Amino acid sequence: MQTGLLNVLVNDRKLHPERMNPTVGRLREVLGAVAPGKAADIFDAHINKTAYQSNGNKFVYLTLAASKNLSVTLTKMLSAKEVKQVISLLQDADVSTKEAIDMHETYKIPVSRLEKDLVFVRADGVWLYDTLGNKYLDMDSNYSATNLGNENKEIALGLFNQASQLIATKEDRVHIPRARFLNEIHSMLPKELTQFYWQNSGGEAVDKSLKIAKAYTKQKGVIALKYGFHGRTHGAVAVTYNPAYRTPFLLDKEDWVYFIEPNDSAAVEKLFKEGKARIIIMELVQSEEAGVRPLDVGFVKKVRQLCDKYNAVMICDEVQTGFGRCAAKPSQWWASQTYGVVPDIMSIGKSFGGGYPVTAVVTKPKISAAMKPGYDGSTFGGNPMAMVAAYIATRQMREKDITANVVARSKQFKDGIENLKKQFPNLIGDIRILGLMIGFELSSKEAVVELQELLKEYNIHSSLSTDNSTDNAVRLLPPLIISAKEVDFTLKGIGQALKRL
Amino acid sequence: MQTGLLNVLVNDRKLHPERMNPTVGRLREVLGAVAPGKAADIFDAHINKTAYQSNGNKFVYLTLAASKNLSVTLTKMLSAKEVKQVISLLQDADVSTKEAIDMHETYKIPVSRLEKDLVFVRADGVWLYDTLGNKYLDMDSNYSATNLGNENKEIALGLFNQASQLIATKEDRVHIPRARFLNEIHSMLPKELTQFYWQNSGGEAVDKSLKIAKAYTKQKGVIALKYGFHGRTHGAVAVTYNPAYRTPFLLDKEDWVYFIEPNDSAAVEKLFKEGKARIIIMELVQSEEAGVRPLDVGFVKKVRQLCDKYNAVMICDEVQTGFGRCAAKPSQWWASQTYGVVPDIMSIGKSFGGGYPVTAVVTKPKISAAMKPGYDGSTFGGNPMAMVAAYIATRQMREKDITANVVARSKQFKDGIENLKKQFPNLIGDIRILGLMIGFELSSKEAVVELQELLKEYNIHSSLSTDNSTDNAVRLLPPLIISAKEVDFTLKGIGQALKRL
Repeated sequence: MQTGLLNVLVNDRKLHPERMNPTVGRLREVLGAVAPGKAADIFDAHINKTAYQSNGNKFVYLTLAASKNLSVTLTKMLSAKEVKQVISLLQDADVSTKEAIDMHETYKIPVSRLEKDLVFVRADGVWLYDTLGNKYLDMDSNYSATNLGNENKEIALGLFNQASQLIATKEDRVHIPRARFLNEIHSMLPKELTQFYWQNSGGEAVDKSLKIAKAYTKQKGVIALKYGFHGRTHGAVAVTYNPAYRTPFLLDKEDWVYFIEPNDSAAVEKLFKEGKARIIIMELVQSEEAGVRPLDVGFVKKVRQLCDKYNAVMICDEVQTGFGRCAAKPSQWWASQTYGVVPDIMSIGKSFGGGYPVTAVVTKPKISAAMKPGYDGSTFGGNPMAMVAAYIATRQMREKDITANVVARSKQFKDGIENLKKQFPNLIGDIRILGLMIGFELSSKEAVVELQELLKEYNIHSSLSTDNSTDNAVRLLPPLIISAKEVDFTLKGIGQALKRL
Repeated sequence: MQTGLLNVLVNDRKLHPERMNPTVGRLREVLGAVAPGKAADIFDAHINKTAYQSNGNKFVYLTLAASKNLSVTLTKMLSAKEVKQVISLLQDADVSTKEAIDMHETYKIPVSRLEKDLVFVRADGVWLYDTLGNKYLDMDSNYSATNLGNENKEIALGLFNQASQLIATKEDRVHIPRARFLNEIHSMLPKELTQFYWQNSGGEAVDKSLKIAKAYTKQKGVIALKYGFHGRTHGAVAVTYNPAYRTPFLLDKEDWVYFIEPNDSAAVEKLFKEGKARIIIMELVQSEEAGVRPLDVGFVKKVRQLCDKYNAVMICDEVQTGFGRCAAKPSQWWASQTYGVVPDIMSIGKSFGGGYPVTAVVTKPKISAAMKPGYDGSTFGGNPMAMVAAYIATRQMREKDITANVVARSKQFKDGIENLKKQFPNLIGDIRILGLMIGFELSSKEAVVELQELLKEYNIHSSLSTDNSTDNAVRLLPPLIISAKEVDFTLKGIGQALKRL
C-alpha cells in the first residue's frame, strides 16, 4: 500500500485505531535521523509553538494545519528517498524514543531493571527493528515467548477474525476455538497427559500445578531444586530458590517447601520416605537463574522411579523448555521427551500462543480427578482469542518442522561455539547446550555484560537478564525459526566481539 | 462480502487461518436445524463414508470432492433463504455443539462446573448468538471482562496491526504501545495512583498487590473480609474467605491472614494496634460470593482513616468493580471514587482490555519505591498487544461516556426491579444495586437457578455462577454499553419469568 507523508502525519483512526499522530518529539527525532543538516531548519522555519497541541497529557502533537504545512515543506526540502525514510520511521512509531523511555521510567513500579538500551518497534521473523530502523538479530525471544518470531501475520488475522466475532468467554464455558485447539494439540503431547486447565502466565500455570498436585496428594510438602526459577506469584515464587525473590515478601520460611541440590536423588527419596513431601517440581534445564544447566539424565529418570514408588507427583515446569526449545531429535516437543520421562503434571506456556499470553496445566486423568467444581476458576484462561493464537501457533510449529530445525541449528551453535572456544581458550569456559537453549561461560559477570553490550554493535540483541544468575554464562535463546545463515551471522558477531573483550 | 456455500464448506485459510472446514457433525446439525425434513435425505443420498476424512483426531471432515458435491446438491435442494442460513451458521462455527461440548468434557480438569447450556459463537454488542443462531441478551459480561460488549471491531483491527508489527515484548523492556497507554490512562485514575505493574489475570494482580504491600510494610499480616473473593493463586486464594476454595490445597491455616466480618472497623483497628497486620484488602462491593453486597460507606471511610493512622496499606480489589461498573455519578471510574476514598493500592483488571487479558497493580510513589529491581518480573505483563487493546478499550469507555450510561441504566434497573417487587412481594427480597452491579434476593438458591433457567426462554443469559454464593441473590452484570431499550427487554423478561416461578 502506498502511504503518503500526510497519511502518517495525520493518522487515520479507521486504519490504525491503535496509534496517534506522531508527537512533536518523534518528528524532531525522525527528521534529525534522516536529514540531520536540515532538520533544525525545517522546525525553526515552519513549526512554531502555536502549531503544537497538548491534550492535557505528556505527549504534544502538531495541529492539523501545521501537519499539512509540514507535509508540503518536507516534500519540497527532502529528497524522495528521505521522504520515504521519514514515512517508514513514522509508521514504525508515533512516539520518540526518549518520550517512550520517560513514560516507562516515570510510571513503572521498579520490580525489575528497565531495559531501555534498545526500543524495538517492528519485527520481521527473527529480526527486530529499533525506533531509528536499525535491525538486530533476536537472541532473547522474550524468554522463549516468541519462538516463532516477533510478528505473525497469520495469528494477526486469526485474532482479528475472532475479536470481530466473539472476543472473550470465561474458562468454564464451552466455546468453539477451544474445541478446535483440543482436537489438534494432543498429537504434540505425551499420550498420558490429556487433561487441561487454562491460565494466562507461566507463574499462574506453576501456581495452579502446585494446587492440583496438593489436591491429589492431600498434603502440602513440595520438593524444589536450588537455582530453579518458577515464577512470581506467592505459590510459584515460594518454590523458586533465589532468596532475593522471596525475602522481601516474607516468603523465605515457607514450611511446605524443601530445596535440594539439583541431581541429588537421595535427598528426594529421603523426603518422600519421611513423608515430608509427595510432590517435586523441576525445570529439566535450569535456565533463568543457573546459566543454562540441564539436569543429569540419571537423576531425572530416578525421580520418575521414585515418584512411581511413593505415588508422588512429578511436575515438570516446561514453560520455557517446552514446544521444541530443547529438542535433541525431531518431534521432541518437550524437554521431558528428550530425557525419556513422562511427568505427572506439566506446566506449559510462553511460546504456544505465538506471543499471546496463554499457558496451561496439563496432567493425567487420575490426578485431574482430584479436582472438583469450585476448586478453581479463571476469567481469561483458555479464552477464544488465546485458543485461536495457540491453534495457529502450534500448527505453524508442526508445519515448519520446528523441532528438526532446532536439532540442526543446535548442532551448528554447538560446533560454532566450540570452535570459538578453540580460538579464545582463555575467554570461553564451559559450554552447555540443549536444543536452542544455549549457555557458555565467560570469566566474570562483567565480561558477560560487556559481551552483550559489544554484540549490539554487531546487530545482535542478547540482553537476557543476568542480574541474578548464579554464574557467568552468556545465555542465548534465539527464536526456533532461526535459519542456518542467521546462526552463522550470530557466531561471526560473537567471534568479533570476543576479540575486543 | 458475498460468501458462497462452497466458501464455507472449504475454508480458505488465507482468509480464516483460525478455522477448519465444517465437520460432518456440524453439517448434520446445521442441515437438521435449517431444513429438518430434508437433512437426512441429503446426507443419506449424497454423503457416504468414503467422503469423510479424519486427520487422526476426533473431528471428521468431508473430503474436498464430497464438499463440492454437497455444495451442488444443497443449492438444488434448499431454498435460497435456507442456503443463506446454512452459510451463516457454518460461518459462525465449524464444529457442532455436541462436538464442542464433548471435547471440553473429555479434556477439562474439572476445577469448575462446565457451563454447556448455551454455546456462544458470535456477538453483536450486548447480544450473544448460539450455535443455531438464537440470540441472548448478556447479563454476565464474563464476570465484567466484556463490559464493552462481546466483540470489538476497533480492538480487532488494532490487534491485527500490532501482531503484524511486533507481537510481544517482555514487561521490563520499553515499547511504544505502553508509552501511548500511559499517556492516556492517568486521566481515569485518582491522581495519587500513578505507578503501574502489569499482569495478565485478576488473581495475579491481587497476588502482586499483596507482595508489593508486604515489601512496603515489611510484615506479612493481611486483613481480609469474610465473603470476599480475590482470585485463585496461592496468594489471592489465601485472602479469599470461602474455605472450600482453600481447604483442598491446605491453604486454610495461613498464619498471615486475618478474616474479619465486613463493616467491622473495630476488628481492623484491633489488628492494626496489636501489630498483627498493616495491610487490608477488600472489594468495595462483595460480588462473587456474597450476592452483591456493597460495604458500608462509614466502614470504608473509617478504614481509610485507620490506614493513615497506622501507616497501613489499603488495597482495593477493583478487578470487577472498576472502570465504571459501580459509577453512582458520571466519571466515577472506580468504586473507591463512589465511596470517596483513595486506596493505597488498586488491583485492576477484567474489563480494561475489552476482552484481552490485561491487569495491573496501581499504587502511590511511596509504596512503589519499596520495590527494587529483581523483586518481580513478568513475560507477558503489559505487552504491546495488551496495551493496544487497553488503549482502544479505555478510549471507547471515555468516548461512549460509559459512566453516564451506567448511572442512567442503574436507576432504570433499580426502578424496574423495585416495581417487580411490588408485583411479586412474596418472591423478591432485598435489592442491592451499585452502578451496574445488580443483585436481588429470591426465596431460595433453587429459585435463583430456576429463574436463570427460565430467563433463557426470554432470551436472557444470566448464568453467573451461584454455586458457592452465601445467599440467594440473582446477580446481573450487564455490559456497560447496554441501552435503555435493552434494560426494558431484561426487566420484561424477568417479570415474565417471575410469573412462572
